[in-house]
Amino acid sequence: MKTREVVLVRRPVGLPKVEDFALREVELPAPSEGEVLVENLSLSVDPYMRGRMIDRRSYTSPFQVDEALTGGAIGRVAQSNHPDFAVGDHVESHLGWREAFVSGARGLRKLGELRAPPSAYLGVLGMPGKTAYVGLLDVGALQEGERVFVSGAAGAVGSAVGQIAKIKGCTVVGSAGSPAKVRHLMDDLGFDHAFDYHEGNLEKHIFAGSPQGVDVYFDNVGGDHLQAALNCMRPGGRIALCGAISQYNATAPVPGPSNLAIAIGLGLTIKGFIVSNFGERELDFARDMGAWIESGRLKYQETVVAGLDNMPQAFIGLFTGVNTGKMVVALS
Amino acid sequence: MKTREVVLVRRPVGLPKVEDFALREVELPAPSEGEVLVENLSLSVDPYMRGRMIDRRSYTSPFQVDEALTGGAIGRVAQSNHPDFAVGDHVESHLGWREAFVSGARGLRKLGELRAPPSAYLGVLGMPGKTAYVGLLDVGALQEGERVFVSGAAGAVGSAVGQIAKIKGCTVVGSAGSPAKVRHLMDDLGFDHAFDYHEGNLEKHIFAGSPQGVDVYFDNVGGDHLQAALNCMRPGGRIALCGAISQYNATAPVPGPSNLAIAIGLGLTIKGFIVSNFGERELDFARDMGAWIESGRLKYQETVVAGLDNMPQAFIGLFTGVNTGKMVVALS
Repeated sequence: MKTREVVLVRRPVGLPKVEDFALREVELPAPSEGEVLVENLSLSVDPYMRGRMIDRRSYTSPFQVDEALTGGAIGRVAQSNHPDFAVGDHVESHLGWREAFVSGARGLRKLGELRAPPSAYLGVLGMPGKTAYVGLLDVGALQEGERVFVSGAAGAVGSAVGQIAKIKGCTVVGSAGSPAKVRHLMDDLGFDHAFDYHEGNLEKHIFAGSPQGVDVYFDNVGGDHLQAALNCMRPGGRIALCGAISQYNATAPVPGPSNLAIAIGLGLTIKGFIVSNFGERELDFARDMGAWIESGRLKYQETVVAGLDNMPQAFIGLFTGVNTGKMVVALS
Repeated sequence: MKTREVVLVRRPVGLPKVEDFALREVELPAPSEGEVLVENLSLSVDPYMRGRMIDRRSYTSPFQVDEALTGGAIGRVAQSNHPDFAVGDHVESHLGWREAFVSGARGLRKLGELRAPPSAYLGVLGMPGKTAYVGLLDVGALQEGERVFVSGAAGAVGSAVGQIAKIKGCTVVGSAGSPAKVRHLMDDLGFDHAFDYHEGNLEKHIFAGSPQGVDVYFDNVGGDHLQAALNCMRPGGRIALCGAISQYNATAPVPGPSNLAIAIGLGLTIKGFIVSNFGERELDFARDMGAWIESGRLKYQETVVAGLDNMPQAFIGLFTGVNTGKMVVALS
């Protein structure tokens, strides 16, 4: 059987271009004993993938030129030669950026009975949702009633961060990249204050939403946002470094915050993290997030792009602010 | 009785100059009921004082122009109208930069029987020693056998950090500002590796001393040192932000590390601290440090400048690398 996958043609310089990617048709073998054939339903594009397009040592190995990209995907078992998988089972894998694949059981996770549409397992019930959960509660050590600032607040991670903080009784301020996103945060997600980071002074906006400053800053953006947040931190505050999307396409080193020494006098803790180091929180996350979703206390939005052909454009759109909530690519 | 004090004449711009300070003779009243007259023996100059010379909100209030400076001091009670203090008692106070003062009991701490010369209570047995102790063990969460890098390693804090780490069975690398200081760290203090930061690439030096990288970086310097240390950190590493002496005299904002995002993938914790928030560790510190000093496991050095007249020059010398170990001003 033939299928299609997205290949990295060359390493992007600056903002990726669609020409950095290409579709390739490949022949899939029939599944051998112990293997299954999976047809993907929903593919994930995430900002962290930009880092993997750079040829450098990091916490994951870099993507290779002329090879298919990989990433989160939700699929359905179409043929099974493995006793644990039945045709029709929904599975999560890291074999995204392709329409179908053949695999052994390793690297496949059965979703069981779905609590939400499959794509939600790439977002609020998946990696970004868990990133928000452990980043805010474990890394940020959030206490009830504290003051929270989250940047990139209309994204997959940020929108979950803000809502979890509201569930925990906190004051929540968020930044986003357009007036429509700001309205979404205020009107749909219950943020106490939200602002468009293109407009005016970041610190003023943060203090406008939380005049007494910030106990926890959840950083998805880096750069100016981190600098401004440092100026708004309260004594003993925590900064969870989750991402730095403002810098992912930089072609030269970007200076860090010139006010980092603020952390000394205020006793701040600045902590980087990746969600894969928090495996022990998987069950807590699934229980809490599932309940919040089912009760309607936590809402999620998706920006859906249709078709593998449009996947490179969907990925690039992460950096130009196309998405509100999780960006996913829907197949068929 | 007349005494002399050092006054801030104007706020320094860049590296302080002796003309930024002046000596002033003042009349001391006789101690009233409940007061004592203290004659200072040893006065402290510390890098943190530079920050207090700037007119800005911080964890301590700024020094005021035309007023006497303050800081750590060890003195001897010369007259007492307070039942808890006898003539001859040694007391620690924050009324340094002056020869004598009259005070109530508040703000005075009796040293009791001395375990070391009085000036040691401004250094290894005082604020800098305790800064090293809590910064390394509590903030840095040092584990036995880890790999430690400390900058400003020949200073009052750094030299204690390195030796405590050695006592805890760690590999210790230190940076300092001269070949003589490097020899002191290696030959006298038992560092595994030390280097002159003026010579060559900081990262290469750190890796030369600890090829597998660094678990705990104790930062006294900031700037290039912090940037280089980030590039040497091991997964789960901790950075204790204690000071940033490289920036204290900057006349424009100094960009922060451009590689801060390394903290994300490696799960680093970067934690600022001031020693005054660790009061609960006072007894542990006094017990451990006292024992280490008495047993000869931890050594200390002082750079002594004589006379209040020379105190501004002693302070300025902190930033030009005059001192090895603790810089103190001796009064007789």
